[in-house]
Amino acid sequence: MSEYQAPVRDMQFVMHEVFEVSKLWASLPAIAEVADKETADAILEEAAKLMGEVVAPLNRESDEKGSSWKDGVITEPKGFKHAYELYCEGGWNALGGDPAFGGMGMPKTLTGQVEEMLQASGISFGLLPMLTAGAALSINSHATDELKEKYLPNMYAGTWAGAMDLTESHAGTDLGIIRSKAVDNGDGSFAISGTKIFITWGEHEMAENIIHLVLAKLPDAPSGPKGISLFLVPKFLVNEDGSLGERNDFSCGSIEKKMGIKASATCVMNFDGAKGWLVGEPNQGLACMFTMMNYERLVVGIQALGAADRSYQNAATYACDRVQSRGPAGVVCPDKMADPIIVHPDVRRMLLDMRAQTEGARAFSTYVASWLDRAKYSENPDEKKHAEGMTALLTPVTKAFISDKALETAIKGQQVFGGHGFIREWGQEQLVRDIRITQIYEGANGIHGMDLLGRKVVSNGGRFIDFFVADINDYLASVGDSVEHQEFVAPLREAVSRLQAVTANIIARSESDPYVVGAVANDYLHLFGLTAYAYMWTRMAVVALAQQGSDDFYTAKLGVARFFFQRQLPQTLALEASIASGSASTMALDSELF
Amino acid sequence: MSEYQAPVRDMQFVMHEVFEVSKLWASLPAIAEVADKETADAILEEAAKLMGEVVAPLNRESDEKGSSWKDGVITEPKGFKHAYELYCEGGWNALGGDPAFGGMGMPKTLTGQVEEMLQASGISFGLLPMLTAGAALSINSHATDELKEKYLPNMYAGTWAGAMDLTESHAGTDLGIIRSKAVDNGDGSFAISGTKIFITWGEHEMAENIIHLVLAKLPDAPSGPKGISLFLVPKFLVNEDGSLGERNDFSCGSIEKKMGIKASATCVMNFDGAKGWLVGEPNQGLACMFTMMNYERLVVGIQALGAADRSYQNAATYACDRVQSRGPAGVVCPDKMADPIIVHPDVRRMLLDMRAQTEGARAFSTYVASWLDRAKYSENPDEKKHAEGMTALLTPVTKAFISDKALETAIKGQQVFGGHGFIREWGQEQLVRDIRITQIYEGANGIHGMDLLGRKVVSNGGRFIDFFVADINDYLASVGDSVEHQEFVAPLREAVSRLQAVTANIIARSESDPYVVGAVANDYLHLFGLTAYAYMWTRMAVVALAQQGSDDFYTAKLGVARFFFQRQLPQTLALEASIASGSASTMALDSELF
Repeated sequence: MSEYQAPVRDMQFVMHEVFEVSKLWASLPAIAEVADKETADAILEEAAKLMGEVVAPLNRESDEKGSSWKDGVITEPKGFKHAYELYCEGGWNALGGDPAFGGMGMPKTLTGQVEEMLQASGISFGLLPMLTAGAALSINSHATDELKEKYLPNMYAGTWAGAMDLTESHAGTDLGIIRSKAVDNGDGSFAISGTKIFITWGEHEMAENIIHLVLAKLPDAPSGPKGISLFLVPKFLVNEDGSLGERNDFSCGSIEKKMGIKASATCVMNFDGAKGWLVGEPNQGLACMFTMMNYERLVVGIQALGAADRSYQNAATYACDRVQSRGPAGVVCPDKMADPIIVHPDVRRMLLDMRAQTEGARAFSTYVASWLDRAKYSENPDEKKHAEGMTALLTPVTKAFISDKALETAIKGQQVFGGHGFIREWGQEQLVRDIRITQIYEGANGIHGMDLLGRKVVSNGGRFIDFFVADINDYLASVGDSVEHQEFVAPLREAVSRLQAVTANIIARSESDPYVVGAVANDYLHLFGLTAYAYMWTRMAVVALAQQGSDDFYTAKLGVARFFFQRQLPQTLALEASIASGSASTMALDSELF
Repeated sequence: MSEYQAPVRDMQFVMHEVFEVSKLWASLPAIAEVADKETADAILEEAAKLMGEVVAPLNRESDEKGSSWKDGVITEPKGFKHAYELYCEGGWNALGGDPAFGGMGMPKTLTGQVEEMLQASGISFGLLPMLTAGAALSINSHATDELKEKYLPNMYAGTWAGAMDLTESHAGTDLGIIRSKAVDNGDGSFAISGTKIFITWGEHEMAENIIHLVLAKLPDAPSGPKGISLFLVPKFLVNEDGSLGERNDFSCGSIEKKMGIKASATCVMNFDGAKGWLVGEPNQGLACMFTMMNYERLVVGIQALGAADRSYQNAATYACDRVQSRGPAGVVCPDKMADPIIVHPDVRRMLLDMRAQTEGARAFSTYVASWLDRAKYSENPDEKKHAEGMTALLTPVTKAFISDKALETAIKGQQVFGGHGFIREWGQEQLVRDIRITQIYEGANGIHGMDLLGRKVVSNGGRFIDFFVADINDYLASVGDSVEHQEFVAPLREAVSRLQAVTANIIARSESDPYVVGAVANDYLHLFGLTAYAYMWTRMAVVALAQQGSDDFYTAKLGVARFFFQRQLPQTLALEASIASGSASTMALDSELF
């Protein structure tokens, strides 16, 4: 039922006006060669057209039909193959790829916007290019040149797709206990055996070949996470001349019945001595996976944001159309039998809540992308190292905070529709079901809380947090302390102080309490996320203040900024108090009492 | 996959130890005749058996199959008819019914517990007895004796079911604009015409007859909500001798495809001059509906609570079984390849969060039921009037706060399962989809926020709030100010003061700001709910403190109480700050800017 209009104007605002990404691009030689403002804007326009006209209209019906399995063959929903062909023809799979192998080499600050449009158009469909890009990134970062030359050009063309095979039924979060095995064939290849579950688009008919990256253990590998290796396992073996040879020894045994993303096939993959090639060093498989994962996790956040924005668009349209009761200050539309529900403050509250989150997330993911670009492309070792620290710190927040808030956002977008929001036809409930997976896959959100607080904060004594605070302070120094900025700057400063105090307190407690990090990690991640959004909304508000009056866009931006500061940022008070109570109440009860 | 164990022990704790309902029952003559502790406990045990063994096992498969429509006939999922027969044979439909017409006349403080078990076993199935009881209640409160005698005995027996027909496609929240018409036939009956949507179990084959209560407008009725009348419209006309006559002129045109409660049929009902009989006075239909609605709305809260508790039960079992990674203080189960995930503080955080909400909701709904019992059965006019005020105040909170928190709870219960939580087989995602409707039907939750703050607080200058605060103060005076109570009593007092201050502030502002009530209503309802739960948890903790050491039950209860006060109650800080900002940021933007 719903149409999708890519938020090109807001993306341009964030890229060009808030973060001035062109300057960043000009400072990174590899990017300077390929990207500038004009190219970027042209790409956004083209992407918006393809996603809005071709991909987005497939979303509703494909959820009803789903992907189906018969004798190992997956039939994807009607229209997906054609849409994927157009996607490939447009060269979109190559957008962020390495130019040495046929990629366009575009920066994440740009590709992230295209990913948002793609995922807003349909998460099920979007997962195919997303996983292909992720697999290509791992191969490009860790495989031999021979493997890169053999596989990457076709993956960037999209004629070959990618899939990631990590999870086993007993090993999800804890990949150290996987059982899949890899035995050296003596010819440079390995024989891979085992069963993987939850493999998104592990099998389908949309591409000529599917390149699986599979985690498995070599014989005599150390136990635990340090004994895991990564293998490239193609569906069809590739001949010397690049043509496709015989089918490899693995197949899709079944697919899952899921809550959402039903149009995508979530496969059980059975490897039965399949031929694979090592990617990276033996036993370094998890490290190789994680290189890719910082990128992938940002994209999961962006995916959630895209779907949440679509929910907002639908809800805002509905709220302006649907008439029901009269406004609280009296009749607004006397010619109608009732007023449009947007006159009701509680409906506006939901819409503004949604918008504060989606626009905050768009700015934040672009901000994080700017650090990913520096980390990947900077030729200054200090800047690179600093950017890697920022990326490490911010990645769990982009994945978990954006997805948590996106679910809340989509639930509000459904609520605006009342009873109609519960009916599948209107599309709002599908967005809730689809977004729900973003809190679960690529590491359940609780894991990201612990990654943030344990590994990225406590274990380095808060050093990365200092980088982040310094960046905020540099920004604040650069804009000056004018009176009109105070309504944003003052609460931002307060939020940053609160984050610093809470951080110092947890670091101190963690020396004697092994449970405190886990007990407060989720609250801490939300405290961090809200503080980061306060920074984002300050940057956006400062630009909007300067442009005030020139365009309604800035009026709206300022309005949403104020709503964020007045209605959402106060949640930091609750989180601070909850965190201050430490781990005692969490750990008091014996397991048997649950 | 999941089993359901009705929480009989916790229900008995709440009923007998926390609220001592036997004393209340003894004080209400109509109840004293039928209910005492022994009878109540026997009823709980019997209900637990039926729900756990017969109803609960149907829940998963019936969601997959759903109800289906063909040529106006609904086929309900396999097993439902048999389960409903057993439900009727057990006399459960009569539990709260009027003894004058074959009901058992049990108080809400007891029937609410049975309703929780029923709804936990399956919301789709549970809706049938729930709507039948609701319709019977309306008939009993407002219909003529002739109609009561004709219809109630069979409805209490369950051989005839009930349905409520309110919504039309253009009129959901705003029932004042319905178009269905009723024309006097001159023989005491009316001809009803129009189309109703979202009619739960409007048609099915489980009962011999279905008694619809339909809202429609008489010719020349005033426009708006004061021109609506209520009619009893049976599927089969009933002959003088009570036998079934010809089929009435209405039918089910189609059913909805929904996000959840798929096993229940949500019907479009087409009335084509169907014969109906007026219930209550002409043009008083909404008032007649609302008598029923206070009961019904409590049950929606209880419904959400039941399903959330089932999610908790599943999640706690899973957390004790599933092994993944090692505990934060080192290996806990050296004989296993990893530790059960309940060793992880973040998993406990989710489980305790769930439990603080479900046990808080169980106490709160029982507390509210005790006021419903007083309001309905007290023979002391002052007590009755006071109880009606409390009921009016608390009803929107039970419906909206419990259902909002139940959704969050079920989402956590799904999250504990990681990827498996997204797979339908495990049942956790169904609970999320099913609970979602409880925030939408019986008045979308935003409406309840406005009902609470607008009608129940501001419009009477906070008089009902004073009743509530007085009840808390009476209780606190009765238990005394011992040192060991302070960890609960002190934050409760603080929360109550906060609620009072916020209330006074809003009442003052509302005099000059027509938007403030709507803008902060949702936050206010949550502030109220948390404060009410602080009261409930104090009452439970005080009992548990006195019994400490006698039984693990009390140890667990105290542990959860501490978690509530330390980790959840601080949300009131955020809500207070958000409410303090008033309506400005909500109302600033023109509608066109959304």
